[in-house]
Amino acid sequence: MAAKRTKTSAEVQRGELALIDEIRRRAVRTTKAAGLRLGIGDDCALLALRRGEELAVTTDLSIAGRHFLLDVHPASAVGHRTLARGLSDLAAMGAQPVAAFLSLGLPRELTVRSGKRAAWVDGFLDGLMALAAEWDVPLAGGDLAQSPVAVADIVLTGAVPRRRALLRSGAKPGDALYVTGRLGGAAAGLEKLKELAAMRRPSKRLLRGLKEEAAVLQPHLFPEPRIAQGLWLQKRRVATAAIDISDGLSTDVRHLCEESGVAAEIEGELIPVAEGANLAQALHGGEDYELLFTAKAGWKMPKQIAGVAVTRIGRMVRRDARRPQVRIVVDGRAEELEARGWEHFS
Amino acid sequence: MAAKRTKTSAEVQRGELALIDEIRRRAVRTTKAAGLRLGIGDDCALLALRRGEELAVTTDLSIAGRHFLLDVHPASAVGHRTLARGLSDLAAMGAQPVAAFLSLGLPRELTVRSGKRAAWVDGFLDGLMALAAEWDVPLAGGDLAQSPVAVADIVLTGAVPRRRALLRSGAKPGDALYVTGRLGGAAAGLEKLKELAAMRRPSKRLLRGLKEEAAVLQPHLFPEPRIAQGLWLQKRRVATAAIDISDGLSTDVRHLCEESGVAAEIEGELIPVAEGANLAQALHGGEDYELLFTAKAGWKMPKQIAGVAVTRIGRMVRRDARRPQVRIVVDGRAEELEARGWEHFS
Repeated sequence: MAAKRTKTSAEVQRGELALIDEIRRRAVRTTKAAGLRLGIGDDCALLALRRGEELAVTTDLSIAGRHFLLDVHPASAVGHRTLARGLSDLAAMGAQPVAAFLSLGLPRELTVRSGKRAAWVDGFLDGLMALAAEWDVPLAGGDLAQSPVAVADIVLTGAVPRRRALLRSGAKPGDALYVTGRLGGAAAGLEKLKELAAMRRPSKRLLRGLKEEAAVLQPHLFPEPRIAQGLWLQKRRVATAAIDISDGLSTDVRHLCEESGVAAEIEGELIPVAEGANLAQALHGGEDYELLFTAKAGWKMPKQIAGVAVTRIGRMVRRDARRPQVRIVVDGRAEELEARGWEHFS
Repeated sequence: MAAKRTKTSAEVQRGELALIDEIRRRAVRTTKAAGLRLGIGDDCALLALRRGEELAVTTDLSIAGRHFLLDVHPASAVGHRTLARGLSDLAAMGAQPVAAFLSLGLPRELTVRSGKRAAWVDGFLDGLMALAAEWDVPLAGGDLAQSPVAVADIVLTGAVPRRRALLRSGAKPGDALYVTGRLGGAAAGLEKLKELAAMRRPSKRLLRGLKEEAAVLQPHLFPEPRIAQGLWLQKRRVATAAIDISDGLSTDVRHLCEESGVAAEIEGELIPVAEGANLAQALHGGEDYELLFTAKAGWKMPKQIAGVAVTRIGRMVRRDARRPQVRIVVDGRAEELEARGWEHFS
């Protein structure tokens, strides 16, 4: 599969080994984590756990055209979101990040620098490494390949004390249902971003638009994983069950109900809708990466955890074949909350 | 991104959740591993280590058109090879497999059953699960997405006693250089497979060809990861350094030299060339997934380890800027062995 050589003097092509070397060099900055004993450069990385700890492991696949759009999303946002998805899964388990692994498949043109213009992959790594540095997560390994379509699979590992991980399966009838932050912001941001991209000529206007609308775009482009909140809940043994809202509240609350064998009743007016978003986006939008969790009804929940609002939005009830598993009360009327979040192959 | 509905009565389409359920059901068979505490179904899987163990982690990306060809490779072979790549990395560290994770991106048509014909993904899972069962590796998690091109990222985790993993970096001048099994068989098999595929009409002839040539095709289609040999070397503290031959001997011996800061001298006539393969395939072919390792010169190496031949092919020497880092002696003449194995973006 020899590719045509289209190299010009202004372009800098890098072979796989050169790109791996560059990633390795950049990754070194954050390899001080206690759990990482051997990083990039061998057949495997090596992780160590402290006594009494378990390792949480998650993988998340991001594919151009499905999870991000090359002509809409800034490369740095794609890098940030790739890592944020994995970190959010760790947050939902109450785990402390140990190390990340990145498998990256890229079309050749996304690895080529042209004159002063950095390659797409450079922007991608900027965004990913900045978030990794924020949470002190070393990039400990991965794989790299040429691919007709850009794909990034992120693997996150995290440490959690034995039998203390927050599971989806622990919710009991009577528990209160909570959510961190506000919902629908990511969906509203994506809509705004697509508008801006549609009128992208001249591109300066897009850049100005991106700047002016930064507050609206932020939740979509640079979501903040709720690591600190997950750790808080885990350490205090507060949450009886937890999941991160990646597919959308309506879909993720169903996952939680399924795994716990319970049903849920949500009060529509309690849902913290993000500024600029509507209720439908808050219910079904997905990619907010907030935590959805349950706690004993009597527990006195603080209004904020580590600087982020926590809102009670409903309660768990006994499963009853005669009633929908997830109900929502809007204007005093209870109806089924259908799972209308993200599903592939549907 | 709503896809057109092309469902007919004879086709069975499965949504993401249905496909995940099926994978989960099939994965359950092998989830008895000591190290896996929580498998598919939550935000993360949970792994436990025994005291004094470290966890080896590796990821390997397989992409249609690069690592396999949909019109050439049987789906079960793609599944087998996907897992074998990861297991081979564990073997090279001397690690005992703990759990695998699979991120799978598939075009819709590869997930569709038509009449009695199973979907491509079913064959893929057959091959992957059969090898997983052989080594008792549970599939503990992963991700699933629709993708314009078939991609599979496999993550393998394995346990190894602390500070006992086989590294690439431990080879010393004077050490002997060994290889397991025979080399070049995968490259020869791939060539034969492409020949058969080129004359694939009628397809019965291909099937007959596949059967007749099974012995030649086997090393390419169904390579056997050298887990048992890696464990043997690790437990007896025999190997000073190790790597698996995935990119080709000429490239992988260079990786080993680089990480150890040494040079290598290979004796061409000692190289165990696989039946049906030539020396060039043995030197540069790649994907043999044999182990390349070093040991103290005085160590009495057995002729076989766990039923697989072990052959001394050369020795490690001091690095010398005036000489090539990897040399091969052929017909009494030493020359540079150029790294001509697999490199992406080259």
